Amino acid sequence: MPDIDRDTVHLEDIPEGATIHCGEVTVSADEIVEFARQFDPLALHIDPEAASESRYGGLIASGYHTLSLSVRLLVEEVRSERAVIAGIGIDNVRWYAPVRPGDTLAVRTTILETRPSESDPTTGIVHETISVRNQSGTEVLSLESRELVERRRRE
Amino acid sequence: MPDIDRDTVHLEDIPEGATIHCGEVTVSADEIVEFARQFDPLALHIDPEAASESRYGGLIASGYHTLSLSVRLLVEEVRSERAVIAGIGIDNVRWYAPVRPGDTLAVRTTILETRPSESDPTTGIVHETISVRNQSGTEVLSLESRELVERRRRE
Repeated sequence: MPDIDRDTVHLEDIPEGATIHCGEVTVSADEIVEFARQFDPLALHIDPEAASESRYGGLIASGYHTLSLSVRLLVEEVRSERAVIAGIGIDNVRWYAPVRPGDTLAVRTTILETRPSESDPTTGIVHETISVRNQSGTEVLSLESRELVERRRRE
Repeated sequence: MPDIDRDTVHLEDIPEGATIHCGEVTVSADEIVEFARQFDPLALHIDPEAASESRYGGLIASGYHTLSLSVRLLVEEVRSERAVIAGIGIDNVRWYAPVRPGDTLAVRTTILETRPSESDPTTGIVHETISVRNQSGTEVLSLESRELVERRRRE
């Protein structure tokens, strides 16, 4: 990674308990179909006619599309400023309600814990819980994320 | 959903304990950058020059790209034949090793359990564990998935 400058957010700069609102994104029918053709080509996600006859009454986004769109908002709002080394993993990913063309998703993340790594004291782990709601306030997705970030070097 | 015909795989048709190999996919640098520009625009995934100076020594795929590519293989090999209602969620998603341009990923799923839903006896839950390895046999990703599927109607 390029030299980490003083403005970069390190483990010590991430406040436990803080909640950060990460903006909004609106998803179109074309985007739903395009993502699903590449990654989740079930009729519900790519075939408007078949989807209209389904229990959902129309196209719905792949859950992995909703997840990926949420990650974009997280990256733009918080992760791009962090000294991120790697995503460790995600847990408790739950899709609660369908996402439909024209829906606007809002993402919020809460920092549950930050702690130094046991195996490498120059790094640490950020544990967050992420919630995604649509324009009606219905939660459509939630998950927990663990990410490895640099600790601030002592000078 | 259109009428479920006799060939569709229902809960009862999914064998607990079975392991299914779901084919392979090779990922290019262009695909890595294109996915990440849309969904995970960190320098490591979109900027070859910055990535070459990182601890990884070059571009690596977004973990969400690896996940989405794995889902495509699962859909093509098994899910498209199932009477899928919805993805419930995923757990224990872990990224173990970087995925680089030219890597070929192989996906394998093992059925841990199938059981009827307690709230709706016409449906049931498939619980799977999924493993993704690269061309060297290194596991790059694993996860567990729970999916809601139709049960076979009694006639």
